[in-house]
Amino acid sequence: MKIALMGFGTVGTGVEEILYKKRARLRQNNFDLDLAYALIKNKDKKRSPFKKDLIFTDDFEKILSSDVDTVIDVTSSFDETYERIIKLMKAGKNIVTANKAVVSKYFENLNDLARENGVYFAYEAAVAGAIPLIHPLMEEALFNEMTKVYGILNGTSNYILSKMEEEGASYEKVLKKAQDLGFAEADPTADVGGFDAMRKLRILSSLIYNSKINEDAIPTFGIGNIKKTDLDFAKAMGYTIRLLAKSELRDGKINISVIPSFLKDDFFAKTFEATNAIKVWGENFSAYEFKGPGAGKLETADAVIRDLLRILSKREIPAFYDGANSYKLEATRSNKFYLRTSLVPKALKDLIEDEKVIGDDHQIITKKTDFETLRPILSALSDVFVAEIEEEL
Amino acid sequence: MKIALMGFGTVGTGVEEILYKKRARLRQNNFDLDLAYALIKNKDKKRSPFKKDLIFTDDFEKILSSDVDTVIDVTSSFDETYERIIKLMKAGKNIVTANKAVVSKYFENLNDLARENGVYFAYEAAVAGAIPLIHPLMEEALFNEMTKVYGILNGTSNYILSKMEEEGASYEKVLKKAQDLGFAEADPTADVGGFDAMRKLRILSSLIYNSKINEDAIPTFGIGNIKKTDLDFAKAMGYTIRLLAKSELRDGKINISVIPSFLKDDFFAKTFEATNAIKVWGENFSAYEFKGPGAGKLETADAVIRDLLRILSKREIPAFYDGANSYKLEATRSNKFYLRTSLVPKALKDLIEDEKVIGDDHQIITKKTDFETLRPILSALSDVFVAEIEEEL
Repeated sequence: MKIALMGFGTVGTGVEEILYKKRARLRQNNFDLDLAYALIKNKDKKRSPFKKDLIFTDDFEKILSSDVDTVIDVTSSFDETYERIIKLMKAGKNIVTANKAVVSKYFENLNDLARENGVYFAYEAAVAGAIPLIHPLMEEALFNEMTKVYGILNGTSNYILSKMEEEGASYEKVLKKAQDLGFAEADPTADVGGFDAMRKLRILSSLIYNSKINEDAIPTFGIGNIKKTDLDFAKAMGYTIRLLAKSELRDGKINISVIPSFLKDDFFAKTFEATNAIKVWGENFSAYEFKGPGAGKLETADAVIRDLLRILSKREIPAFYDGANSYKLEATRSNKFYLRTSLVPKALKDLIEDEKVIGDDHQIITKKTDFETLRPILSALSDVFVAEIEEEL
Repeated sequence: MKIALMGFGTVGTGVEEILYKKRARLRQNNFDLDLAYALIKNKDKKRSPFKKDLIFTDDFEKILSSDVDTVIDVTSSFDETYERIIKLMKAGKNIVTANKAVVSKYFENLNDLARENGVYFAYEAAVAGAIPLIHPLMEEALFNEMTKVYGILNGTSNYILSKMEEEGASYEKVLKKAQDLGFAEADPTADVGGFDAMRKLRILSSLIYNSKINEDAIPTFGIGNIKKTDLDFAKAMGYTIRLLAKSELRDGKINISVIPSFLKDDFFAKTFEATNAIKVWGENFSAYEFKGPGAGKLETADAVIRDLLRILSKREIPAFYDGANSYKLEATRSNKFYLRTSLVPKALKDLIEDEKVIGDDHQIITKKTDFETLRPILSALSDVFVAEIEEEL
C-alpha cells in the first residue's frame, strides 16, 4: 500500500526511520507499506532518507494525483496544509496528521469531510506525543460519558516551569536554554502563551463532549510573564506552579480554560521537564491518568505509525464526531487566584484576601471568585501574571 | 449482532448495565447489539437485569450451539472456563475475557486457537481494569520494541499497603477492613501472595516481548507476611513499600519478578488505595505511565465494552502473538534487599550490610545481590518478609 509524507522535518524523518528500520517486522505482521513520496518545500536541500528511492517533490499535485492511499501530514504550516488536506480527502485519501493547529481550528470541517468522503482522519500525534490518548478516548466516546479532562499539554512550558523551580533560575535564562536545546522555538509565543495547550484542550474536549468549542472562547493565560518571585510565593504557600489546560462538563455547560495553576504535591505537580500529563474523568471509571513524552522525533512518529497501521488494516474508527452537543462555554468555576501586578485597580482591590508588596509588585491572593469576574480586570492590566489556586484535583 | 455473557457476577452485571443504559448511544454509533443469553450456575437465584428478556441459562451447550457471535467471559472459574473458551472458539465465536487466570495460564493456546479459527481474542479487562493498556500495547507490539514493564497490578495489596502506611494499622486489621469492603476475597491468597499480579505480569510481558513466560518461572513474593515494623523500617530510610511486578528484557534475557519494593517518592510510591499503576519502556518513546482503577464493576465492564465494540466493528487486532522469541528467564538483577526474619542462616549472614534486631526479628539490609543468590536462603526460611530496594525507577 502506497503512502506519502507531507513534510520531512523532525517528525517526518522519524516516521521514515521507523518505517524503514521496522520493515521486516511490519511485513511479518502483514503490513505491506511503500512510502513513495515526501512533499518538501526546498528541493535543493540535502536529505538522507533511509529509503534510498524515496521520491522528494515540491509539487503537491503529484501526490494528489498519485495512487497513494494515505497521506501523513507532519507539516507545521496552517492554511496551506488545511487546503491540501481538503483536496486529499476529496480525492479519497486517508489523513494521518500531527498538525494540532489545523486539527484544532478545523475540527468540525475535517470530521465532516472525512465522513462525506469515506476516508479516515486520524490525529493521535496531534496531542501528547507518544501517549496513547486520542484513540482510547475515541473508543470511550462511543459509549461512555466523560465529564472532565485536565492536562499538562505543552512540554516547553513545563520544561521552563520545572527548571525554574529546580534551579531557581530566571524565566529568560531557562527559556534561552530551552531554545538552545531545541525544546523551544525562536518565537516561543505559541508555547509559553498557552496557545498550543489551548489547541490540544480544544481537540480533547470536543472529542469527549462531542461539542464544538471555539478556540477564541477558551480563556488562555500562559507563563510568558512569570518571574522567580511567583514560584517563590507559591512555594512558601506549599504549592508548585504548572500550566494546566482544564475543561469540565457540568449541568450542560463546559467550564474551560488554560491557566498557570498553584498545585499541591499531586500527579500534575510531579510532572517534570517536557513531560505531558493528562487526567480524564468518566462515569464508568472515575478517573485515569497518563504521563509520558509529549513531543520528540520518534515519540511523535510512534503515534503517527499507530494511526497509520490502524488505517491500513481498516481498524481505525471512522469519523463520528459531529459536535451535536452544543454545550455553552463558561468560566464560572469558583476558586482563589494569585495575581502579581504593579497596578491594583479598584475592582481588584475589592477581591483581595491577602496581599504582599515587594518593590513595585503586588502579590495578591484573591477571595474565591471566577474568571468572568476577573476577565475585565485582567484585560485592563498590561503587566500581570495570573494563576488559579487548585486545592485538589 | 447477538452476544452472550458467561457469568453474571459483579462485572457481568456491570456489562449488562452499560449495554442497556447506553443502547441509544450505541445504536447511534451503528452498534446493533443484542445481549441474548447469560450463562449462570444457579438458575434459582433471583437476578434483576435491566434487559427484561435476557435469557438466563445454566446450559453451556445452549450458548455453544446458538447464533451468538461473541461471548464475554466474566467468570472466575478456571479449567471449566478454559474448556468452554476452546469449544466456543472452535465454534467460530469471538472471545472477550476478563479472566486473568485463564488468559495467563493458557496465553499460547488461546492465541493459537484464535488464529486457527479466525476468531478474535480480546482481554483488555484482564489487566488493570479500565486503564487502556492491553490494546495500546498490542498496537505498539506490531512495530516497536518494548524493553521493560513495571506495575502495581493488584489493587487489594496496594490498598492494604497504603492503608497500613496511612493509618499505622496492622496487616490483619487492614485486611479485615478490605474484606468487609469487598476489596479482598475471604481467601486473599491470590492477591496478597502476589499471584494475581504475577499473572498480569506474565500477560503483559509475553505480549510486549512476544515470548512465552511460564508462571512457575516468575519469582513471586507477596505481602501476606508484612508487619507494621517493615513499613516503619522503610519509612525511617525514606522509603515506602509497594508490591511491584517487574520485567525487563536485556541482552536476550528477561529479568522478571513480583516482589514488595522499597520505593522513593516516585510514580509508584504515590499510588494509593486500590489504584493500579503501570510504566512501560519502549525504544520509540522512552517510557510512559498509566494510572487508574484496576478493578470494579463499571471499570472492568468499561474495558470489556471497548473490546466488544472493537470486535463487532472488526477493529480488533487479530491474534498475532506466537511466542517466537524464546527468551531465557533470569533473576540476576543486582540490588540490595530488605529481609525480616527470626532465623539468620550462615549464607544470609555473609550477605548482611546492615542489621537491626528487635525482639526475635532481624531486620536486614543485604549487600548488592540478586534473586538467584537469595532464592535458596529464602526457601529455607519459614517466617520471612522480603523486599527489593529500588533506588530509582
